[in-house]
Amino acid sequence: MDLPSYFPIWDQLAPAQQELILGGAVRREVKKGAVLHNGDADCTGLLLVRSGQLRACILSEEGREITVYRLFDRDLCLFSASCMLRSAQFELTIQAEKDTRLWAIPAEVYRQVMDQSAPAANYTNEVMAARFSEVMWLIEQIMWRSLDKRVAAFLLEESAIEEAKLLKITHETIANHLGTHREVITRMLRYFQGEGMVKLARGAVEILDEAKLAALRDA
Amino acid sequence: MDLPSYFPIWDQLAPAQQELILGGAVRREVKKGAVLHNGDADCTGLLLVRSGQLRACILSEEGREITVYRLFDRDLCLFSASCMLRSAQFELTIQAEKDTRLWAIPAEVYRQVMDQSAPAANYTNEVMAARFSEVMWLIEQIMWRSLDKRVAAFLLEESAIEEAKLLKITHETIANHLGTHREVITRMLRYFQGEGMVKLARGAVEILDEAKLAALRDA
Repeated sequence: MDLPSYFPIWDQLAPAQQELILGGAVRREVKKGAVLHNGDADCTGLLLVRSGQLRACILSEEGREITVYRLFDRDLCLFSASCMLRSAQFELTIQAEKDTRLWAIPAEVYRQVMDQSAPAANYTNEVMAARFSEVMWLIEQIMWRSLDKRVAAFLLEESAIEEAKLLKITHETIANHLGTHREVITRMLRYFQGEGMVKLARGAVEILDEAKLAALRDA
Repeated sequence: MDLPSYFPIWDQLAPAQQELILGGAVRREVKKGAVLHNGDADCTGLLLVRSGQLRACILSEEGREITVYRLFDRDLCLFSASCMLRSAQFELTIQAEKDTRLWAIPAEVYRQVMDQSAPAANYTNEVMAARFSEVMWLIEQIMWRSLDKRVAAFLLEESAIEEAKLLKITHETIANHLGTHREVITRMLRYFQGEGMVKLARGAVEILDEAKLAALRDA
């Protein structure tokens, strides 16, 4: 069982607390595209990513989306258990971006451990502060950066995650990450193509000039 | 000393922990407009508002501002002590919006109490989750709501806080709360005036038709 290795503070938990977590945790496997958690009425529990990739996003009433942060191997998804925090009043959707293997820990089990253990509660504080930092970064992006820079940054990030120049991603998906409309992304990518930065194909974007994209992102 | 009344979990702290906090806490009084905390290099400590009003904002490199959340009587400002959280990596500015009386608790004192006390650490979790909720609300506002609705919402919020229809506030200040430019706010307020919702004067906005503003906000 690899679960203890996900908790930097595992050795600081009492044996009874460790048993509680081990007894409650369940292995899950989800397919790419699956929605694991949907809003704050849904108490999915803590999710620990063993392998794969998740994204946390918010949805507008009109069906628009924006990615708030992403979770990779060994990351802990806290807000899928936001029901255990009285003051967490927001709707977050968690979706698998790749086939993902994970551990799920019931919220009431983790809550019980946090109530007893200062190390567990402080570890949770650190995880929340890390997510807070990502959300503050997002606000800065939305407020102060123009969309061309955000699209350039997103393509380079995708390329780094996938370790590939050829990204199998639709304009719709890019729009849903960045909180905008497909048409806006299509227009922007055509401009990028005209500048020789990318080459467009059906359901794919190929990065041709990484340096030029990076220069745009950092301008 | 009214400090214990600010901590819902005061009675769950050990006497030694209570003494640590009481020994470290300092009373401060700041004038309207004063900057109490400036970015994550600055470790001001926890701020407890006794009376007055603070705002937390982020600044762009070009000097634009946006208010992220506000703090009122009895609120705890956690991120002025973000140096005590390794994973809190963002720059927040805390400014007094009114003359404010507060308690300041050094970050290292609070850190020490949190390390020992699960109730203190879990209380901190709740405070952070509450701020997280406000920040998520802000992202939704920025992403999905048009500026006319945000200005209407802001004027009504100000009116509720001040318990007044005549708001002594400049267009510049409104722009700095909402993350936009003064010219944009001036144009919007003139439109509101044309619709009979407000009356503009030097350094002031008077709300004439609250129902119409509310209808715009909720449309």
